[in-house]
Order: sequence, then structure tokens, then C-alpha cells
Amino acid sequence: MENVMMTERLPGLDLNRLANNLNGQYIRCLDNDRLEEWPEFFVENGRYRVHPRDNRESGLEGGHWMYYASRGMMHDRVTSLRHINKYNKRYYRHMIGDTLVTSVKDDIIFASTNYFLAHTNYEGHTSLFNVGEYLDQIVLVDGQPKFLEKLVIPDTFHSHAAVVMPI
Amino acid sequence: MENVMMTERLPGLDLNRLANNLNGQYIRCLDNDRLEEWPEFFVENGRYRVHPRDNRESGLEGGHWMYYASRGMMHDRVTSLRHINKYNKRYYRHMIGDTLVTSVKDDIIFASTNYFLAHTNYEGHTSLFNVGEYLDQIVLVDGQPKFLEKLVIPDTFHSHAAVVMPI
Amino acid sequence: MENVMMTERLPGLDLNRLANNLNGQYIRCLDNDRLEEWPEFFVENGRYRVHPRDNRESGLEGGHWMYYASRGMMHDRVTSLRHINKYNKRYYRHMIGDTLVTSVKDDIIFASTNYFLAHTNYEGHTSLFNVGEYLDQIVLVDGQPKFLEKLVIPDTFHSHAAVVMPI
Repeated sequence: MENVMMTERLPGLDLNRLANNLNGQYIRCLDNDRLEEWPEFFVENGRYRVHPRDNRESGLEGGHWMYYASRGMMHDRVTSLRHINKYNKRYYRHMIGDTLVTSVKDDIIFASTNYFLAHTNYEGHTSLFNVGEYLDQIVLVDGQPKFLEKLVIPDTFHSHAAVVMPI
Repeated sequence: MENVMMTERLPGLDLNRLANNLNGQYIRCLDNDRLEEWPEFFVENGRYRVHPRDNRESGLEGGHWMYYASRGMMHDRVTSLRHINKYNKRYYRHMIGDTLVTSVKDDIIFASTNYFLAHTNYEGHTSLFNVGEYLDQIVLVDGQPKFLEKLVIPDTFHSHAAVVMPI
Repeated sequence: MENVMMTERLPGLDLNRLANNLNGQYIRCLDNDRLEEWPEFFVENGRYRVHPRDNRESGLEGGHWMYYASRGMMHDRVTSLRHINKYNKRYYRHMIGDTLVTSVKDDIIFASTNYFLAHTNYEGHTSLFNVGEYLDQIVLVDGQPKFLEKLVIPDTFHSHAAVVMPI
């Protein structure tokens, strides 16, 4: 069982950089189609949520596009994706901005990061598929940063293809 | 009255980072639709200009899309925008590159930064709305970096919607 | 003749930052249309290759869009570009992500960086023209970082205009 509770305070880390590096590794994992490693960016009972800005600003608590509350659920999702997406080659490519740590509370680092996601379809055409913001809760587990929660808030709520992959 | 003139030299700051952080806060302000705070990124008589690359390279001194020469003018613009844009929900999302400080002269930091601006319309469709470069003049006011001038130079000079919001 | 072989080990540099700064200068050179300086980012016998991801993942060693193996070849390319592209004004604008140094071997720094490239045509319309990854081999030449090889791997393999300029 992993040690999520930290008995020591966060050391003198550059938290903006730590959170940005974590996001940098996260998007590389997705862009390189190493989906099987994706759940490992989270703690065991970590949450991954995709909740469009439109719904949030309308006060809708529901309306999530994705909601996984453990690594197990995420692994299931990856297995499923591997089955449905065998033939259509598609590429995803992220660009993220600097990460801003907005607060630290009870050893949880709260951070936000802008993202742009480009999608290249099987014909090789690229489009700006989805843009928005990551709102992350990050903890140190045995010295390694992990997502306690990754909340993706897309600005985009219509696109030519469904959002089936993690963003 | 704010203290724009600095009697001390710029301290041993990482100026690239300082200028990049200022731009990072600036785009967050716009992306989160906190327009009322936008003028506060400028000194009292700061200038905000949008001058397309096409005009500049043709030697046209004029042809600005926007030109405000004080915080007061910027506040007026925001008031106006709040009136004309009550019903159409739109989202803007910026991505900026690293900021390069090109020179420092008379306590003014000259810096350039690439930007991409994505626009999501009321139907939820996202497009790459405008790209270009920021050419900034930054000063420290009571220790806080502020824009003496922000010159936005769009590559894009035609788009499906008018540029009415600050970039 | 430049001193590519280094007799001393890489000093205690922040290699991620060094590689990122080099890429930052590289894209500024291209975005500002200073093409004549482009070959200078490479060592004398440096290689510039554009090899689409689609071909690579299909196991095709060939299928390069561009392959230059010296500064001389790059200069020739620039001369040629200046001849064919006199009248159509076009702008390019890059956005790059953080650079990750993946390994260092025999004084060669191996690094990868995501890029997005926007293209603005003569009518002023901007599109996301090409996205992908840089895989760089960087060496220090007289203390200055240079590309021993820059391998561009586009995700995009169809676009509305041919890829004629360096990416």
C-alpha cells in the first residue's frame, strides 16, 4: 500500500516546476500512445474527471464526459480503448503552458495549466481538437508526484470526433 | 501616484522568468474572463496596441486594431465589451512560449513572446483564432512588474470573427 | 574548422534548459524569416531531417520530406526558397513545449520537444499547419550548443499547402 500521507512538510521544492514537470511527463505518455502507463500518474484512488467549462459555468455538477475514481477504472478504460481503436490510426499532440501552483493545503498541491490538444486523423489532417485547463491536485508519494485528482475543463464542447481518449 | 521611476538598478532577477511570469498572469486573467483586472497589468499611462504584422512590414505606422494609452481607456473598453457581449458565450484560451528579454534600457525591460490564441464559439467549436508575437516594455512599479507598453503583433489578419477582446 | 569533439565533460549545466533555449532561438529565427541564419544552428556536417511519424511507425526508413546533411545543403535550400517564394507573403509561427533531455552519450545530448506550427497565408487566414516532435542531438561547439542532428517527426502528413520551409 502506497504512502500517500506525508509526515513531513513539503520540502523546499520549486512547486511550479514540479507540477509542470509532472504534466510534461503526463502529456508525453499520451502523445506517445503509452496509454497503459497513464493510470500510473495517479494515486491508487486518484480521480480523473473531464468536466466541460460550459457545464461548470452553468452550475451543473454533473455532465462529466469522463469520471474515473481509481487506477483500476482507468486501466479498464485503456483496455476498452485498445479494443475499439485497432484500425484507425490517430495521433494526439499536446501543448501545455506553464503551471501555476495556486495553493498548498494539507500537503496537497493545487495547480492549474492551460492545454491545447491537436488531433491528426487517419488521413493525416491535423486540427485543434480540444483546448482548456487542467486543475490538478498533486501529492508526493514516496517522493514522487502523483495526481490525487486531475480535473480537465475543456473550453471545447463540440468537435468533429468524440473525446474518447484521456486528454 | 505610482512610482514608475526606479532609483535603483534592476536587481539580480531572472528577467526572462519575470517577464514570462507577467505574461502568464496576463493570459490567465484574459482566459478566465477577469477583464476588469486587465488594465491593472499596465502602468497608469501604459499603452496597449494591436498592430498587425502585415501593416508593420508594409511600413504602415497606422492601421492599429486597438490603441489605448492609459488604464482609463482600457477600463472604458472593458465596460463597452461587457455591454455588447452579454449573450454570446465565448471562450478564449492562450498559449504562450518562453519569453526572451532582448534588451534592458533605462530600467525598461524589452521582451518578446510568441502567442497562440484559441477561440471557442457559443456552439462549442474551437479554432485557432489568432497567432503572433507580444513585444513588451516592462517596468517595475513598487517592485511589481507592469507593462509600460504591450504591443501585440498578429500574424493573422483575417478571421471568422472580429478581434474585439484584448489578445 | 570548428571543434566538435569535446575534450571535457559537459559541465554542470541545466541541460533541459540549454536544449530548450536552443530550440527557442531556432524557432524565433524561422518565425522572423531569418532563414539565412537557419543553417548556423547546426554543426558543419549537421543533419536536418523531416520524417513523418506515419512512415516511421510503418517501419519505413525512407520517405523523408527533407534530408540535408551539411550546412552547405541547407544554405542551398534557403537560396532556392528565396527564389520560389518572392511574392506570396506567408507567416509561420511556432509554439514549443518544454524540452526533455532523454540521455547524454559521448558528449551528445539527446532531447525531445513537442512543436505546433501555425501558418498564415497571404489572405491572413491562420491554420494549424503541422504538429509533431523534434528529436534532437545537440553538441557543444566552442561552448555553444549546436544541432548535430535535428529530426522533425510530423504527426501531420496531409495539409492544404506543401511543407517547403524548414519546420
